[in-house]
Amino acid sequence: MKSYKEYLWFEVTKRQEFINITPKVREVVKKSGVKEGLCLVNAMHITASVFINDDESGLHSDLEKWLEKLAPHEPVSQYAHNKAEDNAAAHMKREIMGREVVVAISDGELDFGPWEQIFYGEFDGRRKKKALVKVIGE
Amino acid sequence: MKSYKEYLWFEVTKRQEFINITPKVREVVKKSGVKEGLCLVNAMHITASVFINDDESGLHSDLEKWLEKLAPHEPVSQYAHNKAEDNAAAHMKREIMGREVVVAISDGELDFGPWEQIFYGEFDGRRKKKALVKVIGE
Amino acid sequence: MKSYKEYLWFEVTKRQEFINITPKVREVVKKSGVKEGLCLVNAMHITASVFINDDESGLHSDLEKWLEKLAPHEPVSQYAHNKAEDNAAAHMKREIMGREVVVAISDGELDFGPWEQIFYGEFDGRRKKKALVKVIGE
Repeated sequence: MKSYKEYLWFEVTKRQEFINITPKVREVVKKSGVKEGLCLVNAMHITASVFINDDESGLHSDLEKWLEKLAPHEPVSQYAHNKAEDNAAAHMKREIMGREVVVAISDGELDFGPWEQIFYGEFDGRRKKKALVKVIGE
Repeated sequence: MKSYKEYLWFEVTKRQEFINITPKVREVVKKSGVKEGLCLVNAMHITASVFINDDESGLHSDLEKWLEKLAPHEPVSQYAHNKAEDNAAAHMKREIMGREVVVAISDGELDFGPWEQIFYGEFDGRRKKKALVKVIGE
Repeated sequence: MKSYKEYLWFEVTKRQEFINITPKVREVVKKSGVKEGLCLVNAMHITASVFINDDESGLHSDLEKWLEKLAPHEPVSQYAHNKAEDNAAAHMKREIMGREVVVAISDGELDFGPWEQIFYGEFDGRRKKKALVKVIGE
């Protein structure tokens, strides 16, 4: 069994942003030499997500609005967590969007449907953060 | 290490439907010959989910109503994504229900609790779509 | 390829509770002898979650309130599932928080960011339930 890992680093200048990391994950899979296996991609911070959806800017703005409605940032005083911090809502948005994706590797490639793209979803940016890509297989 | 995969195809006639795919996933695991390992089952389309919950029709109608409340399809004009399409809410429902499940294989069987059943959740049907079952292990 | 599994048992006295199971998962990983691989941790019951977030009591009370707002337990009669049972809302809360996490194992350790902690999330307690830890790798 082979295994390989890389960290992907991010420093988003806004509070929220969705970044397409599919090309970077593809590179890591190629470097791993794994032809058949699994690729785990997860946020290593608890106010960020890794998720798979469409790379369409209209949808991304819809998702941001929708998440804001379900888990509003303001007023920050509504959350017990927001004593020293102000990111309670970011923890909630991450629960909806998920921490991680597991993708099959077949014939050395991400085994994807036609529109699947992997995103890093930042909900509390303006600091350095990372995601993990871990590949296992043969 | 062994690996094996199969696609499961769906053509749901309604916009939304939940289909119990547990028997099909069990067959794939049997064919794989894997006794100890992991089984990934994921939707390959971004307006569909694979999730594990109860096979109870009352719960399924509750879930449909609940998802409609959290991410309403109508009015379609409320979403920037709905220019050429009308499926923005389907992308959101899929985020709540998730893209994939990873299930342990122990002694050649899905290592399941008493009520766990795997569902394909369609949120934008009336077209051909597929899910992936990927098994790795020994 | 090595594989190893253990069940973690819970009997929560309240309806809802979040329990930090990181130390128990670490022990299982150590016993597995796996140095490079993946660790799946999943609830085996469909009204419970396993998720990764912050071990901060303010956040936990925020999450409980937030889940109650998104999927209210009362009135129980609003759900078709609640004929013999009263746990429909628990099934929904589990969908938001997720069934499982997959964590990378690197150098024999959970490959975690600075604040990642694994929780068992109970939404319909007062009965015996279990989670599964399955480790594969080398």
